[in-house]
Amino acid sequence: MRIGILLIYILFLSNFFLRAQSKVENWDVFELQLKGKRKGNPFVEVDLSAKFYQGGDTLKVSGFYDGDGIYKLRFMPHKKGIWQYLTASNDSKLHQKKGTFECIPAKYENHGPVRVKDTFYFAYSDGKPFYPLGTTAYGWIQQNKETREQTLESLKKSPFNKIRVALLPHAPSGTNYDLYPFEGAGKDWDFTRFNAAYFARYEHYIKEMQKLGIQVDLFVFHPYDKGVWGFDTMNKEEQYLFLKYVNARFGAFRNIWWSMANEFDLMPDRTTGDWDGYFRFFQENDPYNRLRSIHNAANWYDHSKHWVTHVSAQSEAWWKSNALRDTFKKPVLFDEFCYEGDGDNRTVALNGDMIRHRFWLMTILGAYATHGEAFKQKDTGYQFFRQGGAFEGSSAKELHVLKKVLDGIPGHLKPLGTDWRLNWIRAGVDEQYFLYYFGEYQNSSWTFTELPENLKYQVDIIDTKNGTIVGQENTLGKGDTLALPGKPYMAVALQLVAQ
Amino acid sequence: MRIGILLIYILFLSNFFLRAQSKVENWDVFELQLKGKRKGNPFVEVDLSAKFYQGGDTLKVSGFYDGDGIYKLRFMPHKKGIWQYLTASNDSKLHQKKGTFECIPAKYENHGPVRVKDTFYFAYSDGKPFYPLGTTAYGWIQQNKETREQTLESLKKSPFNKIRVALLPHAPSGTNYDLYPFEGAGKDWDFTRFNAAYFARYEHYIKEMQKLGIQVDLFVFHPYDKGVWGFDTMNKEEQYLFLKYVNARFGAFRNIWWSMANEFDLMPDRTTGDWDGYFRFFQENDPYNRLRSIHNAANWYDHSKHWVTHVSAQSEAWWKSNALRDTFKKPVLFDEFCYEGDGDNRTVALNGDMIRHRFWLMTILGAYATHGEAFKQKDTGYQFFRQGGAFEGSSAKELHVLKKVLDGIPGHLKPLGTDWRLNWIRAGVDEQYFLYYFGEYQNSSWTFTELPENLKYQVDIIDTKNGTIVGQENTLGKGDTLALPGKPYMAVALQLVAQ
Repeated sequence: MRIGILLIYILFLSNFFLRAQSKVENWDVFELQLKGKRKGNPFVEVDLSAKFYQGGDTLKVSGFYDGDGIYKLRFMPHKKGIWQYLTASNDSKLHQKKGTFECIPAKYENHGPVRVKDTFYFAYSDGKPFYPLGTTAYGWIQQNKETREQTLESLKKSPFNKIRVALLPHAPSGTNYDLYPFEGAGKDWDFTRFNAAYFARYEHYIKEMQKLGIQVDLFVFHPYDKGVWGFDTMNKEEQYLFLKYVNARFGAFRNIWWSMANEFDLMPDRTTGDWDGYFRFFQENDPYNRLRSIHNAANWYDHSKHWVTHVSAQSEAWWKSNALRDTFKKPVLFDEFCYEGDGDNRTVALNGDMIRHRFWLMTILGAYATHGEAFKQKDTGYQFFRQGGAFEGSSAKELHVLKKVLDGIPGHLKPLGTDWRLNWIRAGVDEQYFLYYFGEYQNSSWTFTELPENLKYQVDIIDTKNGTIVGQENTLGKGDTLALPGKPYMAVALQLVAQ
Repeated sequence: MRIGILLIYILFLSNFFLRAQSKVENWDVFELQLKGKRKGNPFVEVDLSAKFYQGGDTLKVSGFYDGDGIYKLRFMPHKKGIWQYLTASNDSKLHQKKGTFECIPAKYENHGPVRVKDTFYFAYSDGKPFYPLGTTAYGWIQQNKETREQTLESLKKSPFNKIRVALLPHAPSGTNYDLYPFEGAGKDWDFTRFNAAYFARYEHYIKEMQKLGIQVDLFVFHPYDKGVWGFDTMNKEEQYLFLKYVNARFGAFRNIWWSMANEFDLMPDRTTGDWDGYFRFFQENDPYNRLRSIHNAANWYDHSKHWVTHVSAQSEAWWKSNALRDTFKKPVLFDEFCYEGDGDNRTVALNGDMIRHRFWLMTILGAYATHGEAFKQKDTGYQFFRQGGAFEGSSAKELHVLKKVLDGIPGHLKPLGTDWRLNWIRAGVDEQYFLYYFGEYQNSSWTFTELPENLKYQVDIIDTKNGTIVGQENTLGKGDTLALPGKPYMAVALQLVAQ
């Protein structure tokens, strides 16, 4: 009899479930597949959503049409236990479907989504500090498979844990692609019909990057269509249909960050009100409240607006870290401060020493830096910041030691320097930890007059260029002098010795 | 009969004149020597002044006692023609002496004293722009003759046109000297009796530096006595007696700039009111209204006070050039932004590339930089910023090309960059001249979209590190692209082609 009931239950389920997991790791994606209407334009005509609830928590999630009569709902649970759900739709085949799944503990390497912590910092949901160490590859997901796999491999070997990526095709990265986000061709697109395969490829790489611990800072609009396809000509209704689709498909992935645009101010047809609207869309419709930002070219959006979670600046003014923190009271990311390269344009021609140097400066100043590389690659002529591929510059390699240092910091590094006179360039975590960066100074020693009284620290001397970390035999305290190699780009890390 | 009158006249003159010139070049020093009282303490007891007048101009000048019964009055004329003078004194032998001299035109290399021009800039009195390109040697005038002569020779071969010098002995530069500013020895000094030989040596080198075109930024107080002599323990009356003596002796030299102190804020016994008072003393008693400033360590004096002529900052924050200009509405000198060297202290351990780089940055940003060098010299162990001697670093050599560029600029270079995004780092003189500095960027070209319409420019490509200036065959205009070497530290100068 129990078998009979189970059988009936299975038959009943198969009526609408194509697939759904029974157990999902915390902060992973539960996906429900349903069969529904194929006719007409399901992207526009079918509404699908679901409520997921456990105890007092209820989250409302939008579903999306994936083509071939398949509808999907994705949900990221944020606490362990049994979650229940109930769908709602104007298509009766999708309506009032319900079920449960069990959210099980996250595995070691899954720390959950990244959130703003203590005004200026980031942490994963499990409390582990997150220090963004970004890179950039606007159009890599449009490239051929070989390049995409090479890019993933490059990222895997890199120190980077965040990447800025375009969602819409990026003309400067190429104009002849196998997949496009909409149905159509040439300059003739139906902005109300999405090409599921295009988005599925993004999902694949979002998940691959998740495995590598990389946050995907995805900009949903950009000014680089250059008249090639006209994807920047969607009307307002189409724009919001697009955002809804993107939010429904990608929103459940814990490594997604929403960026409204790259260089938003280069899209003169969009008003500040338009950008406000996109922000508000995500604020209201993304049940996970993922990080939201907007990236400028020459003019600034007002990052103090409450829907902006952090400052995603294009600026070389690392020295304005303090000013930006003070002004916006949010984490400050220098998401573009010129790229390493040998380009003809100054913004893609910074030398590698200076990229690495600015990463260290920004780290000490309580801001976060994003790398980009514009060298033409030997085999392809690609530039990493556009098509991905292989890193050719020096900074991607040399930043490994910064990653290693950041990974060892027991908390959030607060800047401790002065603004007018960077007399000591240091940051610290209470009395637990201090990081000094001497940058262009080749002082042959440092006397630690500024340390707390009566505490002893273990010392690492870090060569930020050569990548060495040399632990010192002797601990030191306030007033002690440490010999240094007398060359530029040295850093010193102090870890409190347990009493 | 004419001979008889002349003879009587000469006899009459010899009664009080020891020496006085009949012709003095404009902006040079007319000096009158008189014999007066020897007894008592002439430094305190004898008042001597003179009025110098021509047409409607009258200047009141203080005299000083030079020892051995000799009193001197020094005067710098500022216009051609016959000047008359009349002395006043409480010593009858010095009172009501009068005479005339002729002020003749200045020679080619004499441009007169430097003044503030158009709020943010400097110019000589004849209108020639003055771009300060400073160096530092606090205690060089106390050193032995060989070192002093070597220092002069170093300065002669250097690109520098301004030097920061201490007036009182500088203990970190040495503690055993042949001359001291006061009568006495050890720690026992009579601050009311000056040692004329000490000041005469300064005068000698002030004049020598004048010949080299070097402005002497003389700080009258400093916190570096270190308890060696106690010259920082003068009481207030003694301080003003000292200032009066200094003003009377040095004030007529056209290359003197008054600095109230180096690192004034390291003298905790002096109040802001004290510093205000010193400024006011010079403002009221220096008839030439020479440049006046004060130099900080960690804390800032309010440079907006009207007696401050320019900002003499200790700061590494070259990026605050705009902010400082906006705040104080005065020329901004980064008179100490860390020295080139290999010292144990970070402030004396900047590498030479960065010294030179910051000079160029500050130039473009409308501020002025001051060099200092802290390498230990091979033969003596001296450091140039203290004892003078020989330059050992790279920046002193490499700044020659900046000097050459500055000398060719037809006016005052106004910064044209933006603050947030240094998207083009350039400065210019109206439409006449533009200077671009690409610094750490190794762009292989530049397209001049920002030039005025319909004008053509002659182009120099400057390698700021290697010191080459390569004139280009072709002129260029708005929108034209210039190929660049694709390496860091390049600059480009554009001179308008006459129509």
